[in-house]
Amino acid sequence: VALAIDRVGVKGLKKPIRVRDRRQGESPAVAVIDLSVDLPARFKGTHMSRFVEALEEFTGALDHKSFRALLASLRDRLQAKRSHARLAFTYFMPETSPEAGAQSLAGYDCFLEGDLEGAPEGEKLTLTVGADVPVMTVCPCSLAICDGRGAHSQRAVVRIRAKAEGFVWIEELVAVAQAASSSPVYSLLKRADEKKVVETAFAKPAFVEDVVRAAARALLDHKLVNWFRVEVESLESIHPHNAFAVIERDKRAGG
Amino acid sequence: VALAIDRVGVKGLKKPIRVRDRRQGESPAVAVIDLSVDLPARFKGTHMSRFVEALEEFTGALDHKSFRALLASLRDRLQAKRSHARLAFTYFMPETSPEAGAQSLAGYDCFLEGDLEGAPEGEKLTLTVGADVPVMTVCPCSLAICDGRGAHSQRAVVRIRAKAEGFVWIEELVAVAQAASSSPVYSLLKRADEKKVVETAFAKPAFVEDVVRAAARALLDHKLVNWFRVEVESLESIHPHNAFAVIERDKRAGG
Amino acid sequence: VALAIDRVGVKGLKKPIRVRDRRQGESPAVAVIDLSVDLPARFKGTHMSRFVEALEEFTGALDHKSFRALLASLRDRLQAKRSHARLAFTYFMPETSPEAGAQSLAGYDCFLEGDLEGAPEGEKLTLTVGADVPVMTVCPCSLAICDGRGAHSQRAVVRIRAKAEGFVWIEELVAVAQAASSSPVYSLLKRADEKKVVETAFAKPAFVEDVVRAAARALLDHKLVNWFRVEVESLESIHPHNAFAVIERDKRAGG
Amino acid sequence: VALAIDRVGVKGLKKPIRVRDRRQGESPAVAVIDLSVDLPARFKGTHMSRFVEALEEFTGALDHKSFRALLASLRDRLQAKRSHARLAFTYFMPETSPEAGAQSLAGYDCFLEGDLEGAPEGEKLTLTVGADVPVMTVCPCSLAICDGRGAHSQRAVVRIRAKAEGFVWIEELVAVAQAASSSPVYSLLKRADEKKVVETAFAKPAFVEDVVRAAARALLDHKLVNWFRVEVESLESIHPHNAFAVIERDKRAGG
Repeated sequence: VALAIDRVGVKGLKKPIRVRDRRQGESPAVAVIDLSVDLPARFKGTHMSRFVEALEEFTGALDHKSFRALLASLRDRLQAKRSHARLAFTYFMPETSPEAGAQSLAGYDCFLEGDLEGAPEGEKLTLTVGADVPVMTVCPCSLAICDGRGAHSQRAVVRIRAKAEGFVWIEELVAVAQAASSSPVYSLLKRADEKKVVETAFAKPAFVEDVVRAAARALLDHKLVNWFRVEVESLESIHPHNAFAVIERDKRAGG
Repeated sequence: VALAIDRVGVKGLKKPIRVRDRRQGESPAVAVIDLSVDLPARFKGTHMSRFVEALEEFTGALDHKSFRALLASLRDRLQAKRSHARLAFTYFMPETSPEAGAQSLAGYDCFLEGDLEGAPEGEKLTLTVGADVPVMTVCPCSLAICDGRGAHSQRAVVRIRAKAEGFVWIEELVAVAQAASSSPVYSLLKRADEKKVVETAFAKPAFVEDVVRAAARALLDHKLVNWFRVEVESLESIHPHNAFAVIERDKRAGG
Repeated sequence: VALAIDRVGVKGLKKPIRVRDRRQGESPAVAVIDLSVDLPARFKGTHMSRFVEALEEFTGALDHKSFRALLASLRDRLQAKRSHARLAFTYFMPETSPEAGAQSLAGYDCFLEGDLEGAPEGEKLTLTVGADVPVMTVCPCSLAICDGRGAHSQRAVVRIRAKAEGFVWIEELVAVAQAASSSPVYSLLKRADEKKVVETAFAKPAFVEDVVRAAARALLDHKLVNWFRVEVESLESIHPHNAFAVIERDKRAGG
Repeated sequence: VALAIDRVGVKGLKKPIRVRDRRQGESPAVAVIDLSVDLPARFKGTHMSRFVEALEEFTGALDHKSFRALLASLRDRLQAKRSHARLAFTYFMPETSPEAGAQSLAGYDCFLEGDLEGAPEGEKLTLTVGADVPVMTVCPCSLAICDGRGAHSQRAVVRIRAKAEGFVWIEELVAVAQAASSSPVYSLLKRADEKKVVETAFAKPAFVEDVVRAAARALLDHKLVNWFRVEVESLESIHPHNAFAVIERDKRAGG
C-alpha cells in the first residue's frame, strides 16, 4: 500500500506581485514561490499544472485575505486537505538618515508562508512572516579591553520568523530587529549621519547574545505574536567565520 | 530578567577532516562547521574562542565515537547543558559504470548533525545523517502520452535526513535514493553505458511522488532508522521551475 | 605615488524599478545594482554616498536613454572620466503554451551593464545586455544508440551577453536561445502541451555544441549586435555534473 | 558551415586532491573542477567522457608540473589545440594568533586556472592563481569625524588573481592581502589577541581604495607576477550594501 505524501508541488516559480504595506499602499515586488499540498495514499500523483494555474489567477495585492484565498484555491483545485505556500520577496520601506534626514529606500529579504488545513467550514490558517534585517553591532568585550579607544564592529543579520493571531507587519519586525542592535544600517548616510551612527553604536555595544535577547523580549511582549524564532548572525570583523545566537518560543505552549 | 538562549556559537568554520567510511577506511574531506551550546538566563555571554579550541583538538577520523567526544568537549568547555554540531562535507564513494565497468569517484553533499543533551552520566545523543543524492527521473505521464516514443527526463536530487539507533552509513542513504529513482547518475559513462542508463530509466519511469514514496518505504523498513525526512526535487526539463515531494516520519511516535 | 583605481563604488544596492519592454509598456522589477567610477591617482578616495544619491534620483523607466543619464550623473557627481553601472533583475514576458494556448508569465534573469567613457561632448557608451534563458535539450547520441525508443533530456541554460549599436531587446535574446534549443520550456503546460513539447524536442535533438552554434549564428546575423558571448550549460540528466559550450565573437574586430 | 567553438567541456566535477604547499608538504583538498577544449568548425561534437577519464588519471599532488600534464592530457585526448582547466578548492594554512601565539588553521577559497595552447613542441601555458582573503578594515573617515573615540570596522574580502612567469604561491597572495588591510582576521583569538587586533586595526585605518592600492603595489613589485587583478569588497557595517574597488594591470603590456 502506498504512503501518504506530506507535501507535493512546485518550487521556484517567479511572479511579479504587489504587497500591501502598512501605509495603506502597495509595493511592487518579485516573488519566488513554492506551492504544495498533501497527497493521500490512494492517489498516484498530483496535477502539477494546477499549481501554476492557481498562481496565474492570483492577481490582487498580497495581504492576509488574498493569501488565504490562494491557499484555499490550491486546496480545492488539488482536492487536498492541506495546502502550503511560500512567497519570498524583497520588501522596500522608506528610510531617513538619522542626522541629515536624507531619504532613501531600504529593501529587506522577507517571506510569507501559509498552511491551510481542513475543509472550508473548519479550516485553520497558520501564517508565518519572515524578515532578514541587516544591523550593526559593536563588540562590548573589545570596547572594554581597549578602554573605549576602539572596538570591532560589523554587519549582522537579524532573522525573525513570527506566527500570529491576526497580522504582523514586516515594518514591525524590522523595527524590533533595529531596536535590538547597536544601530540600524542605512543605504544613504551623509558625513554628519556617519558620525551619528558610529556614536550611537559605540554607546550601545551588543553581543549576538544581547541582540537575540532584546529581539526575543520584544516579540514576547508583542500582543499578536504567538510563536517566533530569532536568529542573529554576526559577520565578525576580526574572524573569517560568523557568530550566531537563536531563541525560539511558542507562547501557546507556555514555552 | 534575561532570557535563556537556545543556541549560541559559531558558523562557517572550515577544517580538513577524515571521515570513516563503510569500507573500514578513511576519506579526506573539507568540512564546513557550525558549533553551538545553550546559554542559561544567568550568563551574560558565551566564550566564542572555546568553540574554535574544541575544534582544533578534534584530530581523529570522524565517526560516531569521535563526534560524540567533540560534542561532549563543547558541552564541558562551555559549561552548557546541550551542545550541537553540524559538519557538512562532500563524501566520495567509488562508482562503477553499469555496462563497461568503468571506475570513477562520486561525491555527495552530506552532513552529520549531533545534539548532546544532559550531564555526562545521563547524556542523550541525537545524531542526524544527511545526504543529497542526484538521480535521474523519466516522466511516466509523458512516456504514456507519447506512446513510448519519447518522454522528458531530468536530474533530480533526493535529500535524505535520518536519525537512528546506532549508526547509518552514508552509503546506505545513497543506495536508498538510487534504488527509488528511474536510474542512478554516473560521472563516467562510455557509449554502451549511456545506452544502458537510458534504457534502464525508460523502463522505470517515476514521478517525484513515486521516488519519494519508494525512498520513504525503504527507510521505514530500515531497522535502525527511527526518524527520517526525504525530499525529492526534480529539475523538470520541460519547465523553468522544479517539482518536489516530501515525506517525513517519526517511527518512535508511531507517525 | 598612488596608483589609479580602475573601479571604485558600491555593490548590492536594491531598488524597485520599471523596465521599458518591447510592447511599449513598462514592467515592474527589483534590481540588484552595482555602481562605480574610475579614480585617478591624485585622489585619495571617492564619495560613496553620491552613488546612492544618484540612484535615488533615478526614477524613470529603465531604457537606453535613462540608463545613459544615470551613467552621466555618476560620472559628473564623482568627477570621474568613466562610470559603470550594472542592474540585474528578473524580466517577465507573456508566454503561450504550444498546443492549448494557455497563458502565463515567464521570468528571465537578465542584466543591463553600461560603461560611459569620456567627457560629455565626446562620451562613448558601451551597453551590454544579458539574459539567462532556460531551455530543453534532447541528447542526439542517446537517441541514436537507443534506436529512437528513448533519449535523455534535461534543462539547459543559454546565457547570452550582447553589445550592440543601438538597442537589443531582451525579447530578442530569449527568442534566439529558444530557437537554438530542442524546445523552449514553459511555466504552464496542459496535457496536450506536454505531448507537443516532448515530440518537438525529440524531433530536434541537440548537443550543447549544437545549441551554442545555432545561437551564435543568429547573433552573427543580427544587424545591431557587434559583440556577443553565448554559453550553454546543460544539467545533464545522466550525470551529476554539467556539460557546457561557449562561443564569443567580436564582429568589430573581424573576429 | 559550422562555427568553431571556443570552449566545450564539463563543469562542476568534484574530486579529492592533494595540493603541494610552500612548506614542501601536501594538503588534502576537495576540488570543484571545470575542464574544456576548443572545437574546430569541422567537428560535430566533443567526447565528454574523455574529460572525466583524464581527470580520473590525475592522481598526483597538484603543482605546476602535474597541472600542465593534466592540460596536455586533455588536449591530446580530445585532439584539440587548446585546453583549459579550473580547479577551485579551500586551501589551508597554519595561523598563529598575534599575542598569545595560539595555533589554528585558516582556510582560503582559492583556484588554479590553466590555458594550454599549441602543439606539444611549441605549447604555451598560462596559469592564473586566485585567492579570496578575508581581512579587517577600519574606516579612516569615521575615525577622523569621531575624534578617535570610535570608527566602524568590518570584514572585507581581498580577491587576488595573478598570472606569473613561474609559480606564485597562494601563501604569497594571502600575505599581500593581509599586509594591505587594517589587520588580518584570525580563526582563534584569545582575549589578549583581540585587544591586539583591534589596536592594530585602529592604528591603520584603510578605505577599500587604500587596500586595493597597497595590494596592487605589492603585486607590481613582485618579480614573477606579470598580470594581476585585485578586488577589495568591504561588508560595510553601517550600510546594507558593500563598497568595492578594483585594480587590474598587465605588466607585459606596460599597463
